[in-house]
Amino acid sequence: MITNDDGWQAKGLKKLTAVMRTIGDVVVVSTEKVMSAQGHSITMRDPLTLRQTVAEEDYLEFVCNGTPVDCVKLGYQCGIASKPDIIVSGINHGTNASVNLVYSGTMAAVVEACMDGYPAIGFSLDCYDADADFDHLDPYIIAITRKVLAEGLPKDICLNVNFPKRSDEPIRGIRVCRQARGQWTEKYASIDNPDGTKTFQVCSGEFLCDDTDDNDVAATAHNFVSIQPVHFDWTAYHQIGKMKSYELINII
Amino acid sequence: MITNDDGWQAKGLKKLTAVMRTIGDVVVVSTEKVMSAQGHSITMRDPLTLRQTVAEEDYLEFVCNGTPVDCVKLGYQCGIASKPDIIVSGINHGTNASVNLVYSGTMAAVVEACMDGYPAIGFSLDCYDADADFDHLDPYIIAITRKVLAEGLPKDICLNVNFPKRSDEPIRGIRVCRQARGQWTEKYASIDNPDGTKTFQVCSGEFLCDDTDDNDVAATAHNFVSIQPVHFDWTAYHQIGKMKSYELINII
Repeated sequence: MITNDDGWQAKGLKKLTAVMRTIGDVVVVSTEKVMSAQGHSITMRDPLTLRQTVAEEDYLEFVCNGTPVDCVKLGYQCGIASKPDIIVSGINHGTNASVNLVYSGTMAAVVEACMDGYPAIGFSLDCYDADADFDHLDPYIIAITRKVLAEGLPKDICLNVNFPKRSDEPIRGIRVCRQARGQWTEKYASIDNPDGTKTFQVCSGEFLCDDTDDNDVAATAHNFVSIQPVHFDWTAYHQIGKMKSYELINII
Repeated sequence: MITNDDGWQAKGLKKLTAVMRTIGDVVVVSTEKVMSAQGHSITMRDPLTLRQTVAEEDYLEFVCNGTPVDCVKLGYQCGIASKPDIIVSGINHGTNASVNLVYSGTMAAVVEACMDGYPAIGFSLDCYDADADFDHLDPYIIAITRKVLAEGLPKDICLNVNFPKRSDEPIRGIRVCRQARGQWTEKYASIDNPDGTKTFQVCSGEFLCDDTDDNDVAATAHNFVSIQPVHFDWTAYHQIGKMKSYELINII
């Protein structure tokens, strides 16, 4: 099963679909529109509509008006893709290295699939262009997917795979990496409205990142593919012992 | 600064505001509507409108049409609450223990504030009622907030505080906990539409949870307050070494 958050006509989704069809039968359940930066948003109150756009024997495609997480949930909970062998998301137009992971709809779909026990991989390219060049990625996508299909993934672990933007040099290899410590700071333009309200619009964003060399941002910057093993237990275990003083708070 | 995802008129938000006003000056930047399960969604393309609803000397309140993460970002990036001493979110109507954290707008606002270097705490009650009883929580909220104000929090750590639903017994104390391993499975009702599309609506959800005793779900079930230290580096560090075989994938 394939999904993503850039809309059903995105070049990256079409590319991932073409690559996966060389491996096996595929079911695509994609967002209707661009749903970037939707994080782990799910639709609880509104109806979701699913529209079939391809019905070939080894290739089904559905478009859904929900979020990427809605897409995967509908996919395997409603019999559209029953018990898929693997769930892949992407190829995202834009990196999901560092804290981009936290905002990412692409990776939220992967994390959701992982929570439900499916092997799941997100693929993202460090290039935001709608017409980005994905052609250098095929052998890496195939090799990583085949390895996961053959060996499985550890329990409650999914993969955040980030690719470098195409350059004159071939990709140098793969690095298994930690997430870089990053931070986005947006700039907003604002207007004072006649009714006393104020309107804001994001007009730019600045990304600051740690400058160490063992993380996913550094790996892709140096023309490596980064693979981050991701889990959905966000407990800072190293802090539990240090925070025991909170248990001594005494309420009379 | 205070925010939440249950809408600006939610009882839990009003309660948290009242409690925080006993500690210091407050600025509330809240979502207009209920934005539960919006995860770390942010508004990148659409304008955000901010409407001021209270203008007292020590208490400002603003309502925003965006997500909880939009609310905190606007709050400290656009001079609405410049350099707040602490950012609190809640009190959420419903638990954010276990994987509820992953879907939570309440906690996404807290994680965002943490990424930007602010001490931040999310408060949630294990009760979804709009008219939930929050009155047993005041001394805990005050004590935890005062301790964070006095001591700060470790770098890149925020707190996910979950309270037990009010019972006949007083709360038994505080436990610093890990996140329970949980999983939501939704049931969808579906309709076949005349145009060939299909409409789905979430009609129920089942929550399965690990039955160990050292986690946040068990703590609140046993009438303790749980405090989970949360970080935004989702790398499964214990897997990095084991996954080095991915670096040996050889692309000719």
